[in-house]
Amino acid sequence: MAKDKLADISTKAPNKEDKAEIKAKTEKILAELDDLQNLLYAGREHAVLIVLQGMDAAGKDGTIRKVFGQLNPQGVAVQPFKGPTEDELAHDFLWRIHRHAPAKGMMQVFNRSHYEDVLIQRVHSWIDDKVAFQRMKAINQFEQLLAKHNNTVILKFYLHISPEEQAGRLAERTEDPTKMWKYNAADLAEAKLWDKYRAAYDDVFEHCSDIPWHIVPADNNWYKEYYIAKTVRDALKALDMHYPRLKTSDAKVGH
Amino acid sequence: MAKDKLADISTKAPNKEDKAEIKAKTEKILAELDDLQNLLYAGREHAVLIVLQGMDAAGKDGTIRKVFGQLNPQGVAVQPFKGPTEDELAHDFLWRIHRHAPAKGMMQVFNRSHYEDVLIQRVHSWIDDKVAFQRMKAINQFEQLLAKHNNTVILKFYLHISPEEQAGRLAERTEDPTKMWKYNAADLAEAKLWDKYRAAYDDVFEHCSDIPWHIVPADNNWYKEYYIAKTVRDALKALDMHYPRLKTSDAKVGH
Repeated sequence: MAKDKLADISTKAPNKEDKAEIKAKTEKILAELDDLQNLLYAGREHAVLIVLQGMDAAGKDGTIRKVFGQLNPQGVAVQPFKGPTEDELAHDFLWRIHRHAPAKGMMQVFNRSHYEDVLIQRVHSWIDDKVAFQRMKAINQFEQLLAKHNNTVILKFYLHISPEEQAGRLAERTEDPTKMWKYNAADLAEAKLWDKYRAAYDDVFEHCSDIPWHIVPADNNWYKEYYIAKTVRDALKALDMHYPRLKTSDAKVGH
Repeated sequence: MAKDKLADISTKAPNKEDKAEIKAKTEKILAELDDLQNLLYAGREHAVLIVLQGMDAAGKDGTIRKVFGQLNPQGVAVQPFKGPTEDELAHDFLWRIHRHAPAKGMMQVFNRSHYEDVLIQRVHSWIDDKVAFQRMKAINQFEQLLAKHNNTVILKFYLHISPEEQAGRLAERTEDPTKMWKYNAADLAEAKLWDKYRAAYDDVFEHCSDIPWHIVPADNNWYKEYYIAKTVRDALKALDMHYPRLKTSDAKVGH
């Protein structure tokens, strides 16, 4: 069934890359990104949606802190999606997602997203394949709605870590006092479902790629941060935004 | 361009119908509908969305009062859609609509709706045909999302009145002290765009009929109320709902 697309992609930073050099580059990129995000906010012509997906401990929280946390919070919002509430379950699965879609001018970061509705729900057989594929179709249409009808740039990142790296990070949460708050016994049970998750992700990569996925080698945080910062910077740069000029009605002649 | 589908449909109650008889029938239907809505609320398996569209003075407000106002307000919500706010305009046109989609168990009435985004906006050339047809496609997908992914029964009503009837009702608003609050000089200007609205509606009927439209003869309020109440009653009856049984965990043996 699944093609295991991820099997061919390394979870590690390329050998040739030097950590110190990459970190310096990331600093530079983040400064550029800060300017670009300010332009985005000033122009209010485009919206930006960042989707972060990955196994537990793949580094989603760290990405938010180290990359998006460097930008002006007035123009950047973060929305985590946990298990749905009773009210959310009484609506279609995109209802709670849509209300957090970014306004023009805003950059919205989703920490997990609508994709959980075809991942965790599928892995645990809470939905069958038929519903899963109907949902994937609805997801494509929803993303096109945001893209076409609100000029939304959607950047979807899969944080790609190895099972070994994950095991190490989860263990750390039981040992490091600054990380214990993240420990959740359920994560260990989920980790055992790795193969099922991989298969569900493979279907997502195949069937929800009208707007492409970025598979981020994420075993090394410094490389992951660089990769994501660079991808977002490049996407914003491609918009070729300019600061709006004075509105004619506001323009003053003379002093 | 337009087929003027409405030209072949009378705005008047059929000749054979007797007003007093119909009114008595409506009373009976509303009592049945009250029971059915209670079932809907108790079962929480389906959602119901009622879309009311029509020219100014077509009788949308009256329908809400006389038909839906007879039901238990705990399970029936009404949402009017006026001109969009600045924040709404900064999102895709379905953003503000989606948040008011009914939860399972609820009946939601839209007084005007997402269709305004392909009607008034098109009539005034605020959007071009390309955008209008993209929106109609997005509307179909959105309605399917609600229908397929949240068991939503969607009933779309066009309140069909004649230009003469409209003119009379708008005039009444300048004369009847209990109706003056509804008077809006802009309505008279809109009424002059009747042919353009008819053409825009025709495209809606043709391109957004995956979920069918009900064209309601609406010159006679008593007939309009009967028609809508009956259509909603029939749709809810067809769901074949039953009151949920005691949950096993709650069931008590003996007293």
